Amino acid sequence: MLVEPTHPGNIGGVARAMKTMGVGPLYLVNPKRYPDHEAVRRAAGAEDLLARATVCATLEEALAGCELVYGTSVRERSISWPVETPEQAARKICRITARGAEVAVLFGRERSGLRNRELDRAVCQIRIPANPDYNSLNLASAAQIIAYEIRKQGAEGAGPDEAERGEPMATAEDLELMYKHIEETLEYIDFIKYRPPTKLMRKIIRLYNRAELSMDELQIIRGMMTAMQEHTAHRG
Amino acid sequence: MLVEPTHPGNIGGVARAMKTMGVGPLYLVNPKRYPDHEAVRRAAGAEDLLARATVCATLEEALAGCELVYGTSVRERSISWPVETPEQAARKICRITARGAEVAVLFGRERSGLRNRELDRAVCQIRIPANPDYNSLNLASAAQIIAYEIRKQGAEGAGPDEAERGEPMATAEDLELMYKHIEETLEYIDFIKYRPPTKLMRKIIRLYNRAELSMDELQIIRGMMTAMQEHTAHRG
Repeated sequence: MLVEPTHPGNIGGVARAMKTMGVGPLYLVNPKRYPDHEAVRRAAGAEDLLARATVCATLEEALAGCELVYGTSVRERSISWPVETPEQAARKICRITARGAEVAVLFGRERSGLRNRELDRAVCQIRIPANPDYNSLNLASAAQIIAYEIRKQGAEGAGPDEAERGEPMATAEDLELMYKHIEETLEYIDFIKYRPPTKLMRKIIRLYNRAELSMDELQIIRGMMTAMQEHTAHRG
Repeated sequence: MLVEPTHPGNIGGVARAMKTMGVGPLYLVNPKRYPDHEAVRRAAGAEDLLARATVCATLEEALAGCELVYGTSVRERSISWPVETPEQAARKICRITARGAEVAVLFGRERSGLRNRELDRAVCQIRIPANPDYNSLNLASAAQIIAYEIRKQGAEGAGPDEAERGEPMATAEDLELMYKHIEETLEYIDFIKYRPPTKLMRKIIRLYNRAELSMDELQIIRGMMTAMQEHTAHRG
């Protein structure tokens, strides 16, 4: 899933990279120039993947129904999101897609990457190992590496130590609603005014994303929020 | 080492791919158009690697002094050369270069790859796993995958998952106190009576243990619990 790609040539390059490794489909969030002949030219035989690409106006729309969302980055960030290697992520992606669920891997803008609020939608960041003195990885190259690892891990099968949790996982959409619910409750109990809300919510989101909540766990947390609001309403 | 590349853009793309992964130098065997501004453009900051590239007229010349030579391919060949995965090859390449010896990895022409007599110069072929229905891997993408594996194998054990999160982690004792605090709060807001408390608390404990809380995160959660209790006390 490409977020606001600037160059149509890169869109084509990514389509080609994905098709060589047999992964897809391609999602484009608010691309600057698309469709474009340069995209078709660089796709070099992967036009079918390009033609079937879903173009969305917003990231929210694109992520609807995804069970797991990954961001990608080569940089260190000050607030550290949980980080996995391409290999670890690919293993998890293969496990989840094997049971029919959808996983999104977000690639950011050519120059500026993903914004923090976009990374907040992701459970985890994939950090592609790179030369610290020159990490200017081309978009299609970054997609190629991730797609390659997915193909590789898919062929090898999931590691035995990575047993499935065996319970339905919360989707990105459910998590989004839960975060809204938490924020609302924190406002309600006057907690949020003591801490800068954006920073606080980002920390809370990071925490729960890292925990990879099951549906059941998500419902416990939402139940707590509801009980809290009801309890205070009752008393008040 | 690129053998008779046709498009200068690909030469630039390969230089960029190599530099992002910190591998080099680049050798060019009888390139069709080189030097070329398109190569510089696609190198996007890796011009130094391009400028230091060695241009040779023949493969023999280029391979002089190399201890180990690999060919690369995505295709099955009728006469089977010994084949390694990118990972296996990268591991061997790292071992050999670590003691100062030189290894060459040959990439063939965009359309026709390496000729059999060129592959004969190689000890072994690296076969990049690819979609059997579409294995049209771009030259820079192929180089990116091999360079990525070399970086990965070279940095073995230093993955970001092993790196510390860079913030003080909550101790078992702190967690214990936090769980008591949560349980107490849930009782306070009458949540616990709707669910069997032991089972519920076990789920909550499992969730937060999995998240591996930092001290800061633990304090956010405890702060929420305190705010909740105070807020209801205040109202009640």
